[in-house]
Amino acid sequence: MHSYDSSQPVRLSVDCMGGDHGPSVTLPACRAFLAAHPQAELLLVGRPEALADAAAWPRCTIVAASEVVTMDDPVEVALRRKKDSSMRVAIQQLKATDGAPAAAQVCVSAGNTGALMAVARYLLKTLDGIDRPAIATVMPNQTGRYTTVLDLGANVDCTAEHLLQFALMGSALVAAVEGREEPSVGLLNIGEEVIKGSETIKRAGELLRDAGAAGLLNFHGNVEGNDIFKGTTDLVVCDGFVGNVALKTSEGLATMISTMLREEFGRSPLSKAAALLALPVLKRFKHRLDHRRFNGAALLGLRGLVFKSHGSADAFAFEQALNRAYDAARNRLLDRVHDRIIATLQATPAQVDGDAGDKGPQTASQAA
Amino acid sequence: MHSYDSSQPVRLSVDCMGGDHGPSVTLPACRAFLAAHPQAELLLVGRPEALADAAAWPRCTIVAASEVVTMDDPVEVALRRKKDSSMRVAIQQLKATDGAPAAAQVCVSAGNTGALMAVARYLLKTLDGIDRPAIATVMPNQTGRYTTVLDLGANVDCTAEHLLQFALMGSALVAAVEGREEPSVGLLNIGEEVIKGSETIKRAGELLRDAGAAGLLNFHGNVEGNDIFKGTTDLVVCDGFVGNVALKTSEGLATMISTMLREEFGRSPLSKAAALLALPVLKRFKHRLDHRRFNGAALLGLRGLVFKSHGSADAFAFEQALNRAYDAARNRLLDRVHDRIIATLQATPAQVDGDAGDKGPQTASQAA
Repeated sequence: MHSYDSSQPVRLSVDCMGGDHGPSVTLPACRAFLAAHPQAELLLVGRPEALADAAAWPRCTIVAASEVVTMDDPVEVALRRKKDSSMRVAIQQLKATDGAPAAAQVCVSAGNTGALMAVARYLLKTLDGIDRPAIATVMPNQTGRYTTVLDLGANVDCTAEHLLQFALMGSALVAAVEGREEPSVGLLNIGEEVIKGSETIKRAGELLRDAGAAGLLNFHGNVEGNDIFKGTTDLVVCDGFVGNVALKTSEGLATMISTMLREEFGRSPLSKAAALLALPVLKRFKHRLDHRRFNGAALLGLRGLVFKSHGSADAFAFEQALNRAYDAARNRLLDRVHDRIIATLQATPAQVDGDAGDKGPQTASQAA
Repeated sequence: MHSYDSSQPVRLSVDCMGGDHGPSVTLPACRAFLAAHPQAELLLVGRPEALADAAAWPRCTIVAASEVVTMDDPVEVALRRKKDSSMRVAIQQLKATDGAPAAAQVCVSAGNTGALMAVARYLLKTLDGIDRPAIATVMPNQTGRYTTVLDLGANVDCTAEHLLQFALMGSALVAAVEGREEPSVGLLNIGEEVIKGSETIKRAGELLRDAGAAGLLNFHGNVEGNDIFKGTTDLVVCDGFVGNVALKTSEGLATMISTMLREEFGRSPLSKAAALLALPVLKRFKHRLDHRRFNGAALLGLRGLVFKSHGSADAFAFEQALNRAYDAARNRLLDRVHDRIIATLQATPAQVDGDAGDKGPQTASQAA
């Protein structure tokens, strides 16, 4: 568990080679980010010749890495073959070595999700009390704020205990990044009634209610798919399969709707004229739904903070991921996750740790 | 298994009391439906005094039922207490009794889903080779056609064999109602690669590939959430939990988007003026996304055809459910489901019937 003094500058390590576009996107994003955050410092990781433009920038250090994990590289290649990849070296900056503090407090990469999670997990290890790291992102909701959703695909078969862990980690994330200290938590289900859902979901509901009653989190109850966009709760917890389907279904529908709007406004000279007049309105509408604004998913449950940008992000979107990572580090997300897990382990040891039965009672005390 | 001569009129039994609005919605819908379908006949089920308006309509018979299953009635009430409910009597019309053919070929109700499925299952029983009935609906896609999705909440913990059964029943539905004889089938997953997903999903992928190779269905492979709206496949198969979340998430996003559009167009006198000019465009856009046009979910796997309307349907929406039910009956959906299941049982008995191992080999031969 590393910690740091919040009066100190926050240092981010950036995998500058990752994603579909590499330095042509990451460098302009880093430059804009630096200009907006005078307290931030960047470690730019990648091939020095590709990052030469940034050599003279203030508050920047170039960290050489000779290899690149491509968007198609299997996890094995990222883990075992490309040991000097920009992704791996960027994550490595989060590790304290030989008593020296870590070089960076948070890492950002647009590299492929599977590889990023695998390398991060291998290098950083999971936090005590966490069985599986999870991926959390935000979606816009009708209240004008965001709904944080996790897990988004890291875990396909979850136990009730995993879902409780997700709720604790997600609560810490919302508190750190959105500034809401006691975010409300919804359990994604197919009905609001407690008798709904699979056995796992019903058991997760019990664990969450108990944790809520113990003051460990703010449990609202079951929510349904539409509640994500209603903004019924700050946080929505689900297993990775369901979360991934919900996210991609939403992306698909949003794409279809914007295509349809374009088609309808482009259909005739008259509708084109209407589009011209409606342009400011349509622009504001587009801005509110612009998924680039919500870029930057958190990998939670590791002994280090890693944020994942969309692979296809442009410079604006990548900068948002840097912003979220910066806020998370500045607001001590790692300590917050740790504190919540420890508090819950101490209050209800058997409930948080799904593997306690296998590992014996020392698990809880190790974590504490 | 009942069958009928397709040159004969199709008779629908309609639960006129179900849904949020009862006869004030169902009767106008029935009237419009009758006018559009000269070959159709209706059995209007409910309290005779509430249906008096329809007493003189041609091709209509009023069937008395003294009770109504409300939208909040628990399944137990619908099953055990309200034995003369319009829902139950409407479904009863699908049963052949004492050698006489069934009074109706398909039943439509806007009553509550849980009660409808339970009563239908109790009265009709499942088809041979089907472990669990499923609910299928359509969503619009970018190609301008529909994607049929099942299951939507009837089944929360599915085996690979259940998913194969859903694929077979869904294929029959698309063939009957959309007129595409060999609809393409996608398995909803979190990636296109065959190694993605839970063990159940991977096993379901194998069963579907085998069934595809044997010519029993047209298996495309894995699809992701966004493929529902891309229209990558005619049919998307998933377990009821995932399908329910995908559907409700989509509804939530569509609601948020239309709210945002309204807000943006209502923001200032200038944007209101733009809205006025853009009105025909926005109307066409709204029409394309109008969920009322897609109303009418099929309950599949029962020994009788039941269609479920949204409880909140208006007369236009309820008429669409009648239309879908009519098309299904006219195009022999029940025989089609039966034929596909039998063909698959004969080709690969162990694969379709998830319980074959428990029940012994007689299951397949019983079904055949």
